[in-house]
Amino acid sequence: MTQQIQITKSQNLKEKPEVAGIPFGSYFTDHMFLMDYSAEMGWHDARIVPYAPFEISPSSQVLHYGQSVFEGLKAYNVDGEVILFRPDENFKRLNRSLERMSMPKVDEEFALDALYELLKIEHDWVPDGEGQSLYVRPFVFANEPYLGVRPAKSYRMMIVLSPVAGYYGAQLNPTSIYVEDDYVRAVRGGVGEAKFAGNYASSYAAQQKANDLGYEQVLWLDGVHQEYIEEVGSMNIFFVRDGELITPQLNGSILPGITRKSLITLAEDLGYTVREERIHISDVEKGIKDGSISEVFGAGTAAVVAPVGIMNIHGTDYRVNNNEIGKVTQELYDNLTGIQTKKQEDKHGWVYDVTATVK
Amino acid sequence: MTQQIQITKSQNLKEKPEVAGIPFGSYFTDHMFLMDYSAEMGWHDARIVPYAPFEISPSSQVLHYGQSVFEGLKAYNVDGEVILFRPDENFKRLNRSLERMSMPKVDEEFALDALYELLKIEHDWVPDGEGQSLYVRPFVFANEPYLGVRPAKSYRMMIVLSPVAGYYGAQLNPTSIYVEDDYVRAVRGGVGEAKFAGNYASSYAAQQKANDLGYEQVLWLDGVHQEYIEEVGSMNIFFVRDGELITPQLNGSILPGITRKSLITLAEDLGYTVREERIHISDVEKGIKDGSISEVFGAGTAAVVAPVGIMNIHGTDYRVNNNEIGKVTQELYDNLTGIQTKKQEDKHGWVYDVTATVK
Repeated sequence: MTQQIQITKSQNLKEKPEVAGIPFGSYFTDHMFLMDYSAEMGWHDARIVPYAPFEISPSSQVLHYGQSVFEGLKAYNVDGEVILFRPDENFKRLNRSLERMSMPKVDEEFALDALYELLKIEHDWVPDGEGQSLYVRPFVFANEPYLGVRPAKSYRMMIVLSPVAGYYGAQLNPTSIYVEDDYVRAVRGGVGEAKFAGNYASSYAAQQKANDLGYEQVLWLDGVHQEYIEEVGSMNIFFVRDGELITPQLNGSILPGITRKSLITLAEDLGYTVREERIHISDVEKGIKDGSISEVFGAGTAAVVAPVGIMNIHGTDYRVNNNEIGKVTQELYDNLTGIQTKKQEDKHGWVYDVTATVK
Repeated sequence: MTQQIQITKSQNLKEKPEVAGIPFGSYFTDHMFLMDYSAEMGWHDARIVPYAPFEISPSSQVLHYGQSVFEGLKAYNVDGEVILFRPDENFKRLNRSLERMSMPKVDEEFALDALYELLKIEHDWVPDGEGQSLYVRPFVFANEPYLGVRPAKSYRMMIVLSPVAGYYGAQLNPTSIYVEDDYVRAVRGGVGEAKFAGNYASSYAAQQKANDLGYEQVLWLDGVHQEYIEEVGSMNIFFVRDGELITPQLNGSILPGITRKSLITLAEDLGYTVREERIHISDVEKGIKDGSISEVFGAGTAAVVAPVGIMNIHGTDYRVNNNEIGKVTQELYDNLTGIQTKKQEDKHGWVYDVTATVK
């Protein structure tokens, strides 16, 4: 069942960049992982090769019909050890996304092994600066050269690695969000809960509109009523209300974030009550006005936790927690990054020590 | 403003296939058109080169975030002349799709000139069999090697050509459709009206479900109420009701088909009343039961007109027009293909004679 991974080492290793200065996802390591799928052979030809452009057919289905999904996680350098945070969850979600998009699933354990092999080769690339990490991007796309509209018969899975600084820089600064009333990201019955490539391109017009209006992120409302909160930018969202945490319940159109899931567990560990609810935008507006909502933050792999300082709701700007980082937000950020960097006890077995396994 | 098109001819021309036997979109001609876009240079480096795989970066944005749109039209061989049907409409729609997906627009006239140049080189490839044509596929995708979630700064436009038989074979046979109650294709505020690559991958699960249940195509209901008719498979839909034609009104989530638009004009020319309405699925069910709806057909570039013989609504199979091709359907098909093949007068200037222009 498990394949051998063929390894071809690069003969021209790149210079390691100053990570603090490079934009997110713009610089890549020396090697990448690939494997191919065909209806006849299943997943095959697993290999690690030098990071380089590859050939694609002009009629490759991904270019025409967008059959493509991805994952994102981070490898941390903790005192020279390479660790991952809940990578099993990423490969589980990858398979759920693949299934939703009518694509062939991968062997989750093998995929994780492949990532370990790749990280073993690239361990020098995992930066150790504050907030820095090696961003891991597994993705799968249709590459059959065929223009008929139906699921492809051949696919490629790849993993590429990119050293990154904190998504919003090193500082945890409050962000501003614009509640979008016209554009819709996803609707129940659609593909919103899959980490489907096209969900991101579909969000650009609204993102641009928010930026043009002077806000950093979009807050999406549900596709049916355009009244219930879904997610913000490419993160999940949390509110601190009367000392409790609330976040939109997973409903088929919201991405089931691994940071979201982890924060729920962590907050409960810290003694908070966490409620997953259907949240009406008017209730948020009221809550911010009357002070019952004291903090708002986004949660995602790239940013980990992103405090929200300004929220524009139906044309009115509301300041949240005086546009400062809230106590609960900071506490959750410190605790989650604490676990991710082995400064705090990992009582749920979330941290995977790559170095220990592959040395 | 207008670029020169650099031409590199293939040294190894392929054998022309027996078009009747090849699946739709699986065989391509000797050459293709490309041009590139960068923020600094705009669209540049327009060229016609041998059809071949090309290099793409592993971090090319189209693979990760799905920023890609396309068009589809057909070149016909009429007594040795190469003609196109309303290609100006395709490039207009391409620009609308590009705009919706935050991608740079192309010069419509230049794009059409480029297609003419390509067809001039490939005119031997336009088949002359009954129902056969050379399918033209313009497409544009993001190719910046960058994983940040924002519109790309570099793009490629390509045109590839594929000789095709009729989409459903040479015969105009009635198809069966399944009214989808759970999966949703698009919703107002989303990207349903763009010819966006991801809209097609998003439809696969429902298409597979319909096929597994024994139906050829999916009929999509609206994303808000899941009650109003949107489109069928990758076609628009028409009903003949009390001798009039009705079709769903364009609402932002339905693809504005060029065949749809042409059939509306053509039907009016033939003396029919055409109504663009919001159509409730229950009214269709009633209409089929009481006989007021006498014909149903899909309309799209690939199939032109596709009669519907069986419709499954909420679990019940309904036969339309005794599962035979209706009189109005046949009349519209004959008239539209008559214009497309110059057997009938082209009073709206829909037919573009490529040969006359480029000889």
